[in-house]
Order: sequence, then C-alpha cells, then structure tokens
Amino acid sequence: VESSVVLAGGADLSEVRAITFDVFGTTFDWWSGVVAQVDDLAKKIGLELDVVAATDHWREEFFLALDSVRNGRREFAYLDVLHAECLERVLVRADVADRVDDETRRHLVRVWHRLPAWNDVAGGLRRLQDKFTLAALSNGGFALTTALVKNAGLPFDCILSAQNARHYKPDIEVYNTAAELLDLEPRQVMMVAAHGWDIAGARAAGFRTAYVKRPRESGPHKAPENPDSVACDLVVGDFGELADILGC
Amino acid sequence: VESSVVLAGGADLSEVRAITFDVFGTTFDWWSGVVAQVDDLAKKIGLELDVVAATDHWREEFFLALDSVRNGRREFAYLDVLHAECLERVLVRADVADRVDDETRRHLVRVWHRLPAWNDVAGGLRRLQDKFTLAALSNGGFALTTALVKNAGLPFDCILSAQNARHYKPDIEVYNTAAELLDLEPRQVMMVAAHGWDIAGARAAGFRTAYVKRPRESGPHKAPENPDSVACDLVVGDFGELADILGC
Repeated sequence: VESSVVLAGGADLSEVRAITFDVFGTTFDWWSGVVAQVDDLAKKIGLELDVVAATDHWREEFFLALDSVRNGRREFAYLDVLHAECLERVLVRADVADRVDDETRRHLVRVWHRLPAWNDVAGGLRRLQDKFTLAALSNGGFALTTALVKNAGLPFDCILSAQNARHYKPDIEVYNTAAELLDLEPRQVMMVAAHGWDIAGARAAGFRTAYVKRPRESGPHKAPENPDSVACDLVVGDFGELADILGC
Repeated sequence: VESSVVLAGGADLSEVRAITFDVFGTTFDWWSGVVAQVDDLAKKIGLELDVVAATDHWREEFFLALDSVRNGRREFAYLDVLHAECLERVLVRADVADRVDDETRRHLVRVWHRLPAWNDVAGGLRRLQDKFTLAALSNGGFALTTALVKNAGLPFDCILSAQNARHYKPDIEVYNTAAELLDLEPRQVMMVAAHGWDIAGARAAGFRTAYVKRPRESGPHKAPENPDSVACDLVVGDFGELADILGC
C-alpha cells in the first residue's frame, strides 16, 4: 500500500460519529469478482466470450443507466433491474444474446451479490467499529448490499442504500437520507469512497470525506483515478490507514 | 423455558429466506433495562421516584403516542421525539418535572438506546444466520435500533425500522416496506414478535409469523399476554427453540 495522507483545509474530524462506506470498488473488488464469476459461467455453458471486455462494457452501461435515473429520464429502478437491462446490451454487442437463457441471465445479475472484499477491509472495519457507527452506503440495492456484506462477513453496523432515498449517488438526497437515518448532522458523518464523484456528492451534503485509493478497482488494464484531483478531508491508501489516522 | 410449539394451518415455511425480529420486548428486555437505568439516574440526582410506576407510565404514553401517529392525528415523528414528549407527561404526573433538567431528560430518552438482550438471543441468532438473512424490524428509529444492536453485539445482517416507511407497526406499510427492501415476497419473510398486535400486522401483510413468549417483557408484576389468543404459524419459547424448529 502506498501511503500518502493529506489533511486538508483543517476540517474538524473530532465530531465524526459514523462512517459511511461506498461499496463497489471501495469496499469490494467488484472487477475481479465479476470477471471470475462471469468466466466460470461462460465456461460452464461453453460460451466464447471476451470476459474482460464484457465486464468493462457492463460497468459502462451501468453508469449510463444511473445517469438516466439521475437525469429524470426514467423512474427510479432497483439496481438488479438496471444490471439486467445493461446485461442485455452487453450480450447483444458480444453477439451471444441468443445463447444465454433466462436462468443464466439471472445468475449473471446475481454475481454482483457475491464479491470479494479488498484484503484490508475486514481488519480496518474491526479497528474502527468501537469508536464509530459503520454503515455501507451503496448505489446497490438494500438487499443486494446486505447480501454482499453478509457473504463477506464484514462487521458493518447497518446497511444504507441509495434505495432508501430512491435516488442514486451522487444525488444529494442519498447522503441527506443517510444522515437523517443515522440521526446525525452531515458534519458528524464521514464518507469513504474510491471515486471522486462520490466524494464530491458527500461534500456537497456537508459530510466529512476520506478518499481511498483503489488503483485496480476497474481492473489492472485501466488507468486509476488521480487522487490529486479530488477535494476531500483525507486521502488514504486503505482502511487500515484510515483507522490509523482516526486513532483506532 | 417452557416449550410449546404450535405448527398451525400447514403454512409452508420452506420459502422463508429472511427473518425480521421485533426489538423492544422480543429481542431486548426493555423493562429491566429501563428500570435499572432510570433508577441509577434518579439516585444520581437525588430524585425520589417510583421507578416501576414511572416506567410503566412511560410505556403506556408511548403506545398512545404511536396511536396518534397511526390514526393520523399527528405527523410521523422520530421515536426519540415521541419518547421525550411522553417522558414529560411521566415527570409531570410523578410531580418531579421541575427537578429534572434538559441534560438529564436527554439521558433518560437515551436509556432506550442501550438495553440488555434476552439471554437466548445472541446464541439463537448465531444459529439462524447461516440459513437466513436476519433483520431487526423495530418501531424504534433506524439509528436507535442500530445503537441497540451494536451495543449488544448481536449478529443482525441489517437494520430495518418503521422509520423506513414513516409509519408505525402494525401499519401494513412497515411490513410492506421491509419486504420491498429485502427484495422478497412477503411469504418469504418471517416476523418474530412477542406481541399479538405485531404478529397480526405481519400476517395481514402476508408474512409468515412466529410468536415468541416473553412473559416478563412488561415486568414481573404484569400479567403476560396469552399466546393462545394469537393466530400465527409458530409459537416458541425463545430464539433457540425457533432455531430448532427451522432446522438450524
């Protein structure tokens, strides 16, 4: 882990009572988990598929789908529904749509329910849990996020989801609803995320923020986001370093 | 524990994927916890108070407050707000309102955030957790319920609250919202509660139901509810017996 801590702007972190953690990419290595499971499924049904290209395309379509909800072009829909719609476009572009039956499609959508956590996550959360309320705060649905956390055995105290606000991050409603459910002022909550857009949304809502570097979150073939471009209270290399800085 | 299992009506429990647990009285021994903490606080400030009578009165006022929300006589309000309003009436009737300052009142309201779980709860939940998603489903607020569960170290997978629906149990909206957040059909969810009114609400929403006997939940001086009067799928003596019946 490359260590680089930035304590910026003198924000008072002593008031923080709860920490909300982004899920895909920040807490879980979604890319490795999706690639491995899609590869297994493809082999099982004898499907020739460029799994890395399909996974990348799926994630791109996913962000377009989130945008369509955020821009009001469509009603709020559950993430599994968006993932299923996006999968259709992935299979069509890969020219395999007619070779994948409905049951396999349901299995594919559910690979997002069982992903590996990054190695530092469980240990970091265990150090943080005595001092802070720890919440997942995901664009994943409430049930999906509950399943991810349960399957990985992570010690979160509660699950929060964009679904609770019927908006997707970085819409401010997601962070406002999270703070309201935690019964805290925004400045008493710290958002931890590996994406500048999530950090920016949380800051707009008045949260404290910690950017965590996950240079491989979109796969080893993709250039990582540059943390220097992200305005935040802290930049950390992993959850253990976050626990260090917060005195846990 | 008095053992008596009633398998009624032939309901199919094999579809159950998640179990939702009522909190005050079912999972936590609220009465002992509130009496002990109020007694401590009263002694600390030299207040002469019939703690049992005050606790009983507080709970009565609490149910009246819930009813006023459920009947639409007032807007949905956070449980801590209702508890604070009810406490005022308790202190007035006990003729001690002018002897209890604001800070002590805040402390009193927060005794509901730290209560002892019944002895069988942690062990029962640990047995159930491999097979089922385990959720608290409380009239307590989301943050309050999160704090209760965290303080007691219970292995719930997620916290659900009446607050998520902005209705109070037994309004059907609370159960419907819980099933929706769990992404399950009502018949795939089992409600566990020590109160016939909660069981009846869950049944009306289509949940499976298990009534758990907590004869001392309102204190040793109060007559327990008669489980024979409660229509439900199961009657159990404690969470361990529930795990037995569900094959965990």
